[in-house]
Amino acid sequence: MSRIQEVNGGVTAPLGFKANGVRCGIKRKGKDLAIIYSDVPASAAGLWTSNKIKAAHIYLDKRNIKSGIAQVIVANSGNANCCNGKAGIEDANLVTQAAASHLNLKPSMVLVASTGVIGKRLPVQKISSAIPMLIKGMNRRGSHDAACAIMTTDTVPKEIAVRFNLKGRTVTIGGIAKGSGMVSPDMATMLSFITTDAAIPPDNLKAALSVAVEKSFNRITIDGDMSTNDTVLMLANGASNMRMDEKDDSFSIFYKGLEYVAVSLAKMLVKDGEGATKFIEVNVRGARNETEANEVARKVSNSNLVKTMLYGGDPNWGRIAGSAGSAHVSIKEDILDIYIGDVQVMKKGAGTAFDRNKLRRLVNGKEARITIDLNLGNGSTTMWTCDLSEEYVRLNAEYET
Amino acid sequence: MSRIQEVNGGVTAPLGFKANGVRCGIKRKGKDLAIIYSDVPASAAGLWTSNKIKAAHIYLDKRNIKSGIAQVIVANSGNANCCNGKAGIEDANLVTQAAASHLNLKPSMVLVASTGVIGKRLPVQKISSAIPMLIKGMNRRGSHDAACAIMTTDTVPKEIAVRFNLKGRTVTIGGIAKGSGMVSPDMATMLSFITTDAAIPPDNLKAALSVAVEKSFNRITIDGDMSTNDTVLMLANGASNMRMDEKDDSFSIFYKGLEYVAVSLAKMLVKDGEGATKFIEVNVRGARNETEANEVARKVSNSNLVKTMLYGGDPNWGRIAGSAGSAHVSIKEDILDIYIGDVQVMKKGAGTAFDRNKLRRLVNGKEARITIDLNLGNGSTTMWTCDLSEEYVRLNAEYET
Repeated sequence: MSRIQEVNGGVTAPLGFKANGVRCGIKRKGKDLAIIYSDVPASAAGLWTSNKIKAAHIYLDKRNIKSGIAQVIVANSGNANCCNGKAGIEDANLVTQAAASHLNLKPSMVLVASTGVIGKRLPVQKISSAIPMLIKGMNRRGSHDAACAIMTTDTVPKEIAVRFNLKGRTVTIGGIAKGSGMVSPDMATMLSFITTDAAIPPDNLKAALSVAVEKSFNRITIDGDMSTNDTVLMLANGASNMRMDEKDDSFSIFYKGLEYVAVSLAKMLVKDGEGATKFIEVNVRGARNETEANEVARKVSNSNLVKTMLYGGDPNWGRIAGSAGSAHVSIKEDILDIYIGDVQVMKKGAGTAFDRNKLRRLVNGKEARITIDLNLGNGSTTMWTCDLSEEYVRLNAEYET
Repeated sequence: MSRIQEVNGGVTAPLGFKANGVRCGIKRKGKDLAIIYSDVPASAAGLWTSNKIKAAHIYLDKRNIKSGIAQVIVANSGNANCCNGKAGIEDANLVTQAAASHLNLKPSMVLVASTGVIGKRLPVQKISSAIPMLIKGMNRRGSHDAACAIMTTDTVPKEIAVRFNLKGRTVTIGGIAKGSGMVSPDMATMLSFITTDAAIPPDNLKAALSVAVEKSFNRITIDGDMSTNDTVLMLANGASNMRMDEKDDSFSIFYKGLEYVAVSLAKMLVKDGEGATKFIEVNVRGARNETEANEVARKVSNSNLVKTMLYGGDPNWGRIAGSAGSAHVSIKEDILDIYIGDVQVMKKGAGTAFDRNKLRRLVNGKEARITIDLNLGNGSTTMWTCDLSEEYVRLNAEYET
């Protein structure tokens, strides 16, 4: 067993994976079609939005992933293929079939994902025409192109990979993701694809992925809007010849690596949030349990007043108290403590005589940390969010046109 | 019985009420201290924020209103007197005592309210010094000055009064209110004071006020942030000599007048929401019950993506579907209908071939109407909100400094 080390290569860092990203013409410019391919059938797990309005690819993926085995992920940006009724599912199916046919696989081995504008039919012809080129170009360094091809309003591609040794063997986990608006807990408008060369049965993979997503993508929020398309897919192809065994420590080391990848990608999404100028960590402690801690952290992280305050760099900490107090959990005002960075701004429900200049410096940096101590119990959580700027409004007022 | 007619005069339109507003020096400029006074002890009712962090005046008012009788309301803007611990309650008490002493009343006859920045001690000395002048200037046309003196980021004072005849007698109800950020259902950052010369027992007044607030102030949202200071206070002094009797129609006529006043003020708050450029009505129908209809309307009304879309004037209706689908109520995608104005943009879960130019005109006006039909039952609701503009961000990034 060894420590977890970051390495280059994203989803193609693990053995036995290829990837590629090309332009097929859905977006006005830039690459918009990505593929991630395992040389052999892989254990597959997926998690999707809890929104009742779901993109077409989610219905398809849920069906295809039932076997626990898949081999390829095809994703497009620029069109969400959502709110298109049965036609949308047929369109997603056509993409699946086109990829399967060129790869000589059963369609059920193909997972698909879409992100972009809601309510427009998927341009299947453009995608199908580009698939031969997409597949031909797949390579062992293709992660970057794939990461670029899933971007919408993202300003940078998001990639990470980690490596660790287990019983003399090397295991690698890699991931890519895209944000960056409509991102909120309970799965955000985000796509993330994670690969590993560990050998792990589908059920264990699903269990590990669920916990890792709960601690990462479900702990971030950009604008509190829950997407219709959120998707995390993971493939584990066993190419490292290292079997994860729940009976020894290997599984927990593997889980730590997976959480590292997921948390790293989640933080990248927040840092590249639409219009974001600041990365904000919201810690809640002293809650009666973790659920209540999450509820308070979510309220504060989604508060437009807290987010604009941090954008403005003005330590109007009362907005943090007001927002925490509006959560549907029991809070006692007269034992509530609040900190910005390491400065206590509220003690037992009242303001403190803090150093205003020091505080101003703390909220004016690129990162800010808020800590709320409810002093009621041992429940705690951490959530990550960003500020709300004029640029967010501009971007979202002009998104479709 | 007669129809309800709008009249001038706000809270001083009903007989037996005086009001005034002066500058005592809390805000940088403008009037910041208001009074509303009944010539005789009046039935009194109040409703306050459900936020667990409450302004000091709320603790005091709840105690003083227990008798069901009060005679005067004193309100300041520029300072919320919230998060000040026990000192805050003592400060609010000092204001109560100062007003009571100058009016020769018991302190329990005085209700107080504050709005403004959280976490700064109330400048009691400034307020106490201004109280003699405030009281001396009270007059039968003072509603406008009182409405101005409770403004914070409001751009216009909000006043309304209605009059109707009952059994040959004339009854008047008047109100003033202030917004205009931190406004969200479950009582918003708003103060509203309502007066009437009807004679009505405190319990009946409270019941009528509760229903009217549920249909008005609890149906508006500006930014989804729930305030610590929300307060609605109502005084009924009986000066019209018209007793409201639950046994005949008079009570329901009275209630209709009260709802008219409350809804009018609530809509004024939304129209003057921070940075608002558009007034938006969100209708939800076909829900299984009203609670679920409210839940969906609230989600859509609070969605930054829907609000920025309407600000941009771009009919990206998928955001409405996505937002509705994220509400924690059962929604069936394949029977969901959505309209913007009278144009159906989504039918049975899929986009329609609507006239894009007509739709663009509909979302580019000063008012926009969204209707969501869940097609599941008979529950319906209406909620009012505004768009989210760059100006909102600017205002809230600079609020304290």
